[in-house]
Amino acid sequence: MADSLNCDLKSLSPLQLFERVTEQGDKVRALKAGKAPKDEIDAAVRMLLSLKLSYKTATGQDYQAGLPPKDLVLINNGTAKEEEEDLVDPWNVQTSNAKGVDYDKLIVRFGSSKIDTDLINRIERAIGQKPHHFLRRGIFFSHRDMDQVLDAYENKKPFYLYTGRGPSSQAMHVGHLIPFMFTKWLQEVFDVPLVIQLTDDEKYLWKDMTVEKAYEYARENAKDIIACGFDINKTFIFSDLDYLGTSAGFYKNIVKVQKHVTFNQVKGIFGFTDSDCIGKISFPAIQAAPSFSSSFPQIFNGKENIQCLIPCAIDQDPYFRMTRDVAPRIGQPKPALLHSVFFPALQGAQTKMSASDPNSSIFLTDTPKQIKTKINKHAFSGGRDTIEEHRKYGGNCDVDVSFMYLTFFLEDDDRLEQLKQAYTSGELLTGELKKVLIETMQPLVAAHQERRKQVTDEIVKQFMTPRKLAFEF
Amino acid sequence: MADSLNCDLKSLSPLQLFERVTEQGDKVRALKAGKAPKDEIDAAVRMLLSLKLSYKTATGQDYQAGLPPKDLVLINNGTAKEEEEDLVDPWNVQTSNAKGVDYDKLIVRFGSSKIDTDLINRIERAIGQKPHHFLRRGIFFSHRDMDQVLDAYENKKPFYLYTGRGPSSQAMHVGHLIPFMFTKWLQEVFDVPLVIQLTDDEKYLWKDMTVEKAYEYARENAKDIIACGFDINKTFIFSDLDYLGTSAGFYKNIVKVQKHVTFNQVKGIFGFTDSDCIGKISFPAIQAAPSFSSSFPQIFNGKENIQCLIPCAIDQDPYFRMTRDVAPRIGQPKPALLHSVFFPALQGAQTKMSASDPNSSIFLTDTPKQIKTKINKHAFSGGRDTIEEHRKYGGNCDVDVSFMYLTFFLEDDDRLEQLKQAYTSGELLTGELKKVLIETMQPLVAAHQERRKQVTDEIVKQFMTPRKLAFEF
Repeated sequence: MADSLNCDLKSLSPLQLFERVTEQGDKVRALKAGKAPKDEIDAAVRMLLSLKLSYKTATGQDYQAGLPPKDLVLINNGTAKEEEEDLVDPWNVQTSNAKGVDYDKLIVRFGSSKIDTDLINRIERAIGQKPHHFLRRGIFFSHRDMDQVLDAYENKKPFYLYTGRGPSSQAMHVGHLIPFMFTKWLQEVFDVPLVIQLTDDEKYLWKDMTVEKAYEYARENAKDIIACGFDINKTFIFSDLDYLGTSAGFYKNIVKVQKHVTFNQVKGIFGFTDSDCIGKISFPAIQAAPSFSSSFPQIFNGKENIQCLIPCAIDQDPYFRMTRDVAPRIGQPKPALLHSVFFPALQGAQTKMSASDPNSSIFLTDTPKQIKTKINKHAFSGGRDTIEEHRKYGGNCDVDVSFMYLTFFLEDDDRLEQLKQAYTSGELLTGELKKVLIETMQPLVAAHQERRKQVTDEIVKQFMTPRKLAFEF
Repeated sequence: MADSLNCDLKSLSPLQLFERVTEQGDKVRALKAGKAPKDEIDAAVRMLLSLKLSYKTATGQDYQAGLPPKDLVLINNGTAKEEEEDLVDPWNVQTSNAKGVDYDKLIVRFGSSKIDTDLINRIERAIGQKPHHFLRRGIFFSHRDMDQVLDAYENKKPFYLYTGRGPSSQAMHVGHLIPFMFTKWLQEVFDVPLVIQLTDDEKYLWKDMTVEKAYEYARENAKDIIACGFDINKTFIFSDLDYLGTSAGFYKNIVKVQKHVTFNQVKGIFGFTDSDCIGKISFPAIQAAPSFSSSFPQIFNGKENIQCLIPCAIDQDPYFRMTRDVAPRIGQPKPALLHSVFFPALQGAQTKMSASDPNSSIFLTDTPKQIKTKINKHAFSGGRDTIEEHRKYGGNCDVDVSFMYLTFFLEDDDRLEQLKQAYTSGELLTGELKKVLIETMQPLVAAHQERRKQVTDEIVKQFMTPRKLAFEF
């Protein structure tokens, strides 16, 4: 009995073990409360101790009620361990720190790995060119298993990229471009297939929106994504509402994930409650499934074991922690991840931007005049109150939103460093720094608008048609 | 405030109102336990009373904690109101009564309507022929809105039939044929399209089974279903695992249902717990969606408002109570239902048969010899212990399984009545009654096997290909 139990337990993930201990604890309490026979209680307690031991062996941690294992730690409804801990999940990002979220702490909490100089150097050697400034400047700062992707790449084994967007409105802002700009670069330097998921079903479930509206937003957003310059022969963009009804493999992977994740787990990971609709509760499986190449039989020729690499903002990590927990149990490789920081709102780095507040960022539809006005009027400044003080003490780049935006969009390293020094020393005034940002953003947005105009409905249709890409599998 | 609350509440279904009252009750208790300020508690209590009033207005019943409104009463995890109440849900049927489940009580508990003589006469007038013996003998005994279907039919408005099967194994028994035999008759007399759902995804989620195995069982079961004689030009059979990936409309309806049903609701209706996988929790929407014609755009030309009629065993009703609760909220007509009694196990009517126990029924693969042996050896008899006693007191048809089977499969009313009288009077012995059953079942099963042999893989493929049927919409 004990042997078969242990054998059985070995096949469980840390999170499943955690649940078993929790359930057994509940059982023991119920038996005691119900004044069950002593031998029954004793047997249940022995089982509880045995389960706790298995948990410790598997995780290296003692079981603590309400604290799931580190790799799947509660992130949005657990009791805060420290005062003013940052709140980060797919629907909320909040911090009380003007510099933004403490990303080093987040790496520890999420159990991911820092993208350090060694890894950046290894990427440089692998691709034979200078890594993207998002990597050099720590904008993509965290990863899971990127070393394994590089191992595979160096051994000529294929992998593919997967990223996505929730099309909550027609309006996209420049912050939304960050994962797509980086993904485009990854696709170019590694020359790999790319799938882009538009979770219109998620937006329908979460928002007060019709299915038709969500699908319309997905198609509109696809235009902005295509305008980033993706290669039509190497990229498949899909709406869930559309693709689920046209793919032989996608639903099968969804239902496999759904079989291996309990309500307890999504409650712990995403904070769902009993009052949430069953669509929300099962949705995480739909964001998980594109991590498995068999969801795209038309691209991968039905092959099941192609490694997936997911570039995304760190708030999407909970979906993929869940996916990585499930993957080995359904015979699939765990997806690797590259995590970006959040793009700050013009008003400051305390919150992620909101597409519903037009002044919270620069939108892809803004005119040069709107860009200028927004930056001058709303961009939070790290400068001093008076010119005299600024000249004397200098500005603070760590909290200055104009400078932050420049780290995202000004590609010239030397120029950025000069600006930093000049602003910090007080030589450069806030108005002058803002002018540099305005002159950087105006042509960038105008060029995007120009490219977007070229994206016809026919081109969108081609990108969104399930088809073979320019790769052999 | 009160006005806008009432206005808001009017749009809620009875079940949603029930939940709101329950939640508000919890809130009041929490406030009291937390020693909240008096005015806060008073406000919460006022809200609670207002909600209870709305509930009573909507349902005509007083709110009772733990007892949801009649049309959606808890059926499998509520506290039993009477001793030894029958247990009936999609996964369990249990009664302590040898006559089987008390169906009149079930009608009251489920809030459905009895199929009475008036309704049977009206069906006879509508179709211009004698109703099926399943109707005449109370085998289909309960309905929801069948009168509306007849209204529509008499006004030349179209409707369609939807039934299904969970393909848990290759082995189907004669009881599994009941809904299909009746559906075939309905299709013939009303001349309407029919869709048959094979819930292979459900079986994958509930059983220890691969996706591939579940799909294989679905195709094997389809052969037995086709062998019942369905018209290939008027019938579409689909596996969920397959059709979900080929239909433009199915997933959209699934996600619409999923948005309008909470975990609290499926917990109440199906008894799910926090330890259940998210696939089970969201599955009811997949059984609900074929009730809406837009799930089959290829058949109904995208039309959304075609009335659906579902013939099924009464244990499937919880799915469709949920569907009927959701339908008006997503702008769809409520499906109508015709409910059958359960087919008894050979061992007696206390339980539904199990495909996993070969002796619990006559299987469609049984040889004439197996049929004879099973009936002689296992069919529970309502006869007396000795021939003398039997001649003197007579047998009891109410508990005799051979007689019950004959009510299902012996079409000749006069002969059945003769057998009943002879058995009840003691004139006919158990062995003789069993012999009549054997002689009825052997040719019936042999004929089925003969028809099944004609069902080639090509024919299965045709039935399971999404396509236009022989109707114009």
